[in-house]
Amino acid sequence: MKESTKNQIRRIASLARQASFDMALLPKEIKNKALTLMAQALKKNARFIIRQNLKDLKEAKNQRLSQAFIDRLILTEERINKMAKSLEQLRGLKDPVGETIKRWKSPVNGLIINKVRVPIGVIAIIYESRPDVTSDCIGLCVKSGNCVILRGGAEALNSNQAIYRIITQAVAKFLPKGSINIMPVKERAAISFLLKLNDDIDLVIPRGGEGLIKKVASVSRIPVIKHYKGICHVYVDKDANLDMAGDICFNAKVQRPGTCNAMESMLVHKDIAARFLPAMSKRFRQAGVQIRGCRNTAKIIKGIKLATEKDYRTEYLDLILSVKVVASLDEAITHINEYGTHHSDSIVTENNTSARKFLERIDSACVYQNASTRFTDGYQFGLGAEIGISTEKIHARGPMALEELTTYKYVIYGKGQIRTA
Amino acid sequence: MKESTKNQIRRIASLARQASFDMALLPKEIKNKALTLMAQALKKNARFIIRQNLKDLKEAKNQRLSQAFIDRLILTEERINKMAKSLEQLRGLKDPVGETIKRWKSPVNGLIINKVRVPIGVIAIIYESRPDVTSDCIGLCVKSGNCVILRGGAEALNSNQAIYRIITQAVAKFLPKGSINIMPVKERAAISFLLKLNDDIDLVIPRGGEGLIKKVASVSRIPVIKHYKGICHVYVDKDANLDMAGDICFNAKVQRPGTCNAMESMLVHKDIAARFLPAMSKRFRQAGVQIRGCRNTAKIIKGIKLATEKDYRTEYLDLILSVKVVASLDEAITHINEYGTHHSDSIVTENNTSARKFLERIDSACVYQNASTRFTDGYQFGLGAEIGISTEKIHARGPMALEELTTYKYVIYGKGQIRTA
Repeated sequence: MKESTKNQIRRIASLARQASFDMALLPKEIKNKALTLMAQALKKNARFIIRQNLKDLKEAKNQRLSQAFIDRLILTEERINKMAKSLEQLRGLKDPVGETIKRWKSPVNGLIINKVRVPIGVIAIIYESRPDVTSDCIGLCVKSGNCVILRGGAEALNSNQAIYRIITQAVAKFLPKGSINIMPVKERAAISFLLKLNDDIDLVIPRGGEGLIKKVASVSRIPVIKHYKGICHVYVDKDANLDMAGDICFNAKVQRPGTCNAMESMLVHKDIAARFLPAMSKRFRQAGVQIRGCRNTAKIIKGIKLATEKDYRTEYLDLILSVKVVASLDEAITHINEYGTHHSDSIVTENNTSARKFLERIDSACVYQNASTRFTDGYQFGLGAEIGISTEKIHARGPMALEELTTYKYVIYGKGQIRTA
Repeated sequence: MKESTKNQIRRIASLARQASFDMALLPKEIKNKALTLMAQALKKNARFIIRQNLKDLKEAKNQRLSQAFIDRLILTEERINKMAKSLEQLRGLKDPVGETIKRWKSPVNGLIINKVRVPIGVIAIIYESRPDVTSDCIGLCVKSGNCVILRGGAEALNSNQAIYRIITQAVAKFLPKGSINIMPVKERAAISFLLKLNDDIDLVIPRGGEGLIKKVASVSRIPVIKHYKGICHVYVDKDANLDMAGDICFNAKVQRPGTCNAMESMLVHKDIAARFLPAMSKRFRQAGVQIRGCRNTAKIIKGIKLATEKDYRTEYLDLILSVKVVASLDEAITHINEYGTHHSDSIVTENNTSARKFLERIDSACVYQNASTRFTDGYQFGLGAEIGISTEKIHARGPMALEELTTYKYVIYGKGQIRTA
């Protein structure tokens, strides 16, 4: 990478750090005003954005990228209106900044200690293809008082820069200079360089495929909150309401198979397998779902492909499902903790003792009794919005909403106390 | 490193992961019983521990390590009793595990969502010389339901292993097999190898010098919470009570200069510098503190060494102090945010408007009005105990006590809900 490019990136990070001090103190009225202006500007400039998007689409077709990829890349007036609506919805959410989380008087020395919620500071977000992520991330960072450095996929560069330009021009008078940034270069090496700037950047959030996440995690000197893959399970217990189990499994697999909270693996207790699996497999077959099962599954559903060890470790993101018949609740729990990715797992059962054991012992961000794994989502949780689903245990676990984009500081009042021991 | 050593380390991490599922569910009575037994065993076996410690001391003298280093390494019956007492004190603290942090019904779908506090899982702690850290860390991890892998300094290997052996033998019947571990080898390469085992280890906490922390942060694939250096400031405002300011500055520098929350840099407003500095410098001189000041400081205190740019970025951990006369509160704030390490900083002032600005704008874990920075400490905060002081913004900031050794999971109850949009 050229020295001038490095300097350009260094400068962005350093100005974002400077801006972060003012950004953290911005009143909620100003932040909400900025969100309004952003939404208006997007709608007003939809044609310009679509024109820029066409450049990316042309290039994607030249490069013969997949239709699924192009579908995610394409921007229509409808999609742009949806982006604007998301920004407007953020306005109505509670400002997380400034809240006193706890306040107490130290019994040891009489100091008054306040644990106060503050923005994290400067957040870098590295993501792939979908350009609507650009405006979503800007909105969430502004609302939570953070400065942001965005790096979208090279394939969406023109779209992302158009959205960025429209938004920043609209709020230039309201937000600190340097608070919203986009990486100016396509080069991949720029990401590695950015990830070394730990003095000026507080957190990196990678969103995307396995390759991207692994690369960011291995290179970064900045703390990373990964939004990694979800190998989610539904376990149908011997005491399940089988109608309910059928609906939940169908929904978890079929409703939107390309999402991280979709079911990839279905576990069925042996005692109800012969009753549950035939009708279920028929329903799945009609929806185009391919089943890969264990030997015992294959005894009940004829003609299916046998699941390999690798199948149970695969996030298909597609209409494919691995199935296993298990001998006990314990076997289900052990399997999920071993093969899952600690994202979202559900038990269907009417037996609350079994449910309790499952909910306690499954080491995942979200554990459900009698509901679809597809509910792991900030909006579905009632949190209003989310920047993604964290697969970390540290700082944020599961849906990462406005509160998880903050940290805290201790503000302490004394009367001249000094420490004697 | 030999393949057999690698396998040994892999095995420790993998068994710790397995143990973590049971450890997380251990009732508080069992954990408290284990703490009691550990404390008793330490006291009963003090002679054995001291004998093993002598081996380390002999080696340290052979290697001509500094007297300060040897002072930290030495174990006496008194120090061992203190270690036991710390374990006993943990018993009385609230068990952080299992608490329902929040509980709500999602307005979107009627799911009952519980945010429940759970242990992190497997924590690796990498630390230097002081062997009492060994029992402190074991105690904190057991109380918070975590499994632990310890790696102390090579110079304290015999002492650490003795403490480890005594403690684990005492609780073998009460805690899951493989829940408390110590790295079995001296080789430095073993640390780098351990830090790649991100499937089995959830968090790494390095405690020690700059070299250790930087190395761990750059090598680790596991999330790291650094306990890094503290360049702490006291700013004496023009509206300060100068008697109070003198006592606070003296305490922050002199009471225990080797700690991370000791003052390294004193900022003084120009309007009161001529009144404040002469008496203060006399008091510091009598305590053996060497002052390194800016040009304006040198005009008031004759014969001092001039501070360089590097001085303001140095954590002396010694009876040395950098001093700067500033023209305004704003200059003090800018200086601290630029030169400090975001650890602990204090303003001494009777002017609450100035205090508020300082407390809001200083980007540090702990910000004080009218108190010594030395209070940044889990026990002083009334949190009972701490594993150290985090200099991160992510997950834990400032004193890291039992609650910060936990994470959360979402436990969600449905009635068969499926997602429709």
